[in-house]
Amino acid sequence: MKNVVVGIDIGGTNSVFGLVDESGVILSRKSIKTDSYDQFELFVEAAATVIESFKQEFPETKIVTIGIGAPDANYYNGTIEHAANLKWSGIVPLRRSFEKRLSLPVVTTNDANAAALGEKLFGGAKESDHFVVITLGTGLGSGFVVDGKVLYGKNSFAGEVGHMQFFPNGRVCGCGRRGCAETYVSATGLVRTTIELFSELMIDSPLRDLPTNQISSKKVFQAATNGDLLANEAFTRTAEYLGQILADTMIFSNPDTIFIFGGLANAGELLMKPLKVAFEKRSLEMFKGSAEIKFSQLPEADAALLGSAALAWEEFHK
Amino acid sequence: MKNVVVGIDIGGTNSVFGLVDESGVILSRKSIKTDSYDQFELFVEAAATVIESFKQEFPETKIVTIGIGAPDANYYNGTIEHAANLKWSGIVPLRRSFEKRLSLPVVTTNDANAAALGEKLFGGAKESDHFVVITLGTGLGSGFVVDGKVLYGKNSFAGEVGHMQFFPNGRVCGCGRRGCAETYVSATGLVRTTIELFSELMIDSPLRDLPTNQISSKKVFQAATNGDLLANEAFTRTAEYLGQILADTMIFSNPDTIFIFGGLANAGELLMKPLKVAFEKRSLEMFKGSAEIKFSQLPEADAALLGSAALAWEEFHK
Repeated sequence: MKNVVVGIDIGGTNSVFGLVDESGVILSRKSIKTDSYDQFELFVEAAATVIESFKQEFPETKIVTIGIGAPDANYYNGTIEHAANLKWSGIVPLRRSFEKRLSLPVVTTNDANAAALGEKLFGGAKESDHFVVITLGTGLGSGFVVDGKVLYGKNSFAGEVGHMQFFPNGRVCGCGRRGCAETYVSATGLVRTTIELFSELMIDSPLRDLPTNQISSKKVFQAATNGDLLANEAFTRTAEYLGQILADTMIFSNPDTIFIFGGLANAGELLMKPLKVAFEKRSLEMFKGSAEIKFSQLPEADAALLGSAALAWEEFHK
Repeated sequence: MKNVVVGIDIGGTNSVFGLVDESGVILSRKSIKTDSYDQFELFVEAAATVIESFKQEFPETKIVTIGIGAPDANYYNGTIEHAANLKWSGIVPLRRSFEKRLSLPVVTTNDANAAALGEKLFGGAKESDHFVVITLGTGLGSGFVVDGKVLYGKNSFAGEVGHMQFFPNGRVCGCGRRGCAETYVSATGLVRTTIELFSELMIDSPLRDLPTNQISSKKVFQAATNGDLLANEAFTRTAEYLGQILADTMIFSNPDTIFIFGGLANAGELLMKPLKVAFEKRSLEMFKGSAEIKFSQLPEADAALLGSAALAWEEFHK
């Protein structure tokens, strides 16, 4: 019998399940619609059915642990707490319900911490004990590894740079406050910056032909690659903002590598080139040249899954 | 023979030496003028003389380790690196020189990390594994403890919130950049805020009778306690800035306690009352009410010394 784990990535729309071996190979991958389950217990049933099907599909394997990455999941007590993007309100007994239903050890954390573990076990951070993973999706997530271990803090909510103040009294954030970093640096932040530039600059742009509520980060990216100056400026500013945030990140945890990951990272050099310039410029003297910025070396489509699987393997080896 | 350690606090002007037992009692305390030693090797000689005198003074004790707190001291390689406030330029072989001269184990770290260890061993953090110490002196220092251990990072320079960006393109900082947190929140930051208020507000104040280069944080404090509205506003704003910084600190390391320490902390409720209000207001929802702000429970005069001694004890017990 070969030991394997199940990695689960619970997202607001879909939840993806993977049967993953110790070298990070995904033997099987399935998904269910998170948002069709109004009741959490019904979701657990559906998940159990998926996991049972893995067992039948690979009878020569033994599932040793289940790792679950979910928004606002607490590593210590295994609950999801007041997740804004999930239908299940209040405190959801994620770990307990899965353990009870499947009689297997279950470990949980939030998406960004799972991504950091995935980078460590299966990606570009195999050799590093001090690194940060920045996820640039709808929001701005981050996972910190210090001395080889994920930084959790008292309630396991440490290391979320997306809600640090970036600009005093700046853009309104979904969290109810103003000026949070993710209102500037994220897919939605890029769109907001683009719209701001419509009023600030007098550069023509095909993006001006669109109603602002139809502008997406993808459209800004396409315009930029087509040579649109305004869209390019939106990317440059986003990169400069991120450069400042990463310079602050250096001051906080003094890593040797910062991995960039998620939808916006697909912009490639359009983001990376100005980012590296801004990062060096804005870094404190003592940190200049001491860390590298790289793209994540996990395949984007599977990164969340591999992160959850890495969490499971880490727990299994404890 | 009773085991004891020597704690050394190297400051720009004075260096203080203490013979400290395991319960934090300072058996003897001596100091030398740091800035009278242009050559580091002469400083080491003078320090050795002090330590030899401790041995003669307390023949029934055995010094087991020396702990040294110094600006910009590197925990891992035992050097002081390009310290702006010391006469010894470049990279100073702090640990090696002391070990060679005294044939004792030596451990080094910067002042803020030493303060955090002091709080853990001898102060208010005995029961806490997740806390932050903020030192409000000329600058803004910070030491982070996570899972019971000081957060060092790759080069041991982690956790220096004083140089995180607080206001984009804000006040010029000694580090050569702009908008760093310590240009707003520190003794000098308070003075700069006071001067800014001279131009912003139309409130009368006895502080307006002084040349601005003669305004000190102490004078602002005295004016505030005498009921001066402008000086009070300077404290309130400083407290609000600090509240924001502490809210960001929560997001970083998710501590259960934040200790405030250093010259400005002497302002007591003048600082603490608006600080607590601002901290709650600016905290991310998930962190509201989850951490307490307290004054350091180390005696201010001995805190740096006790921090260095705590570092030595920690090393001894490894």
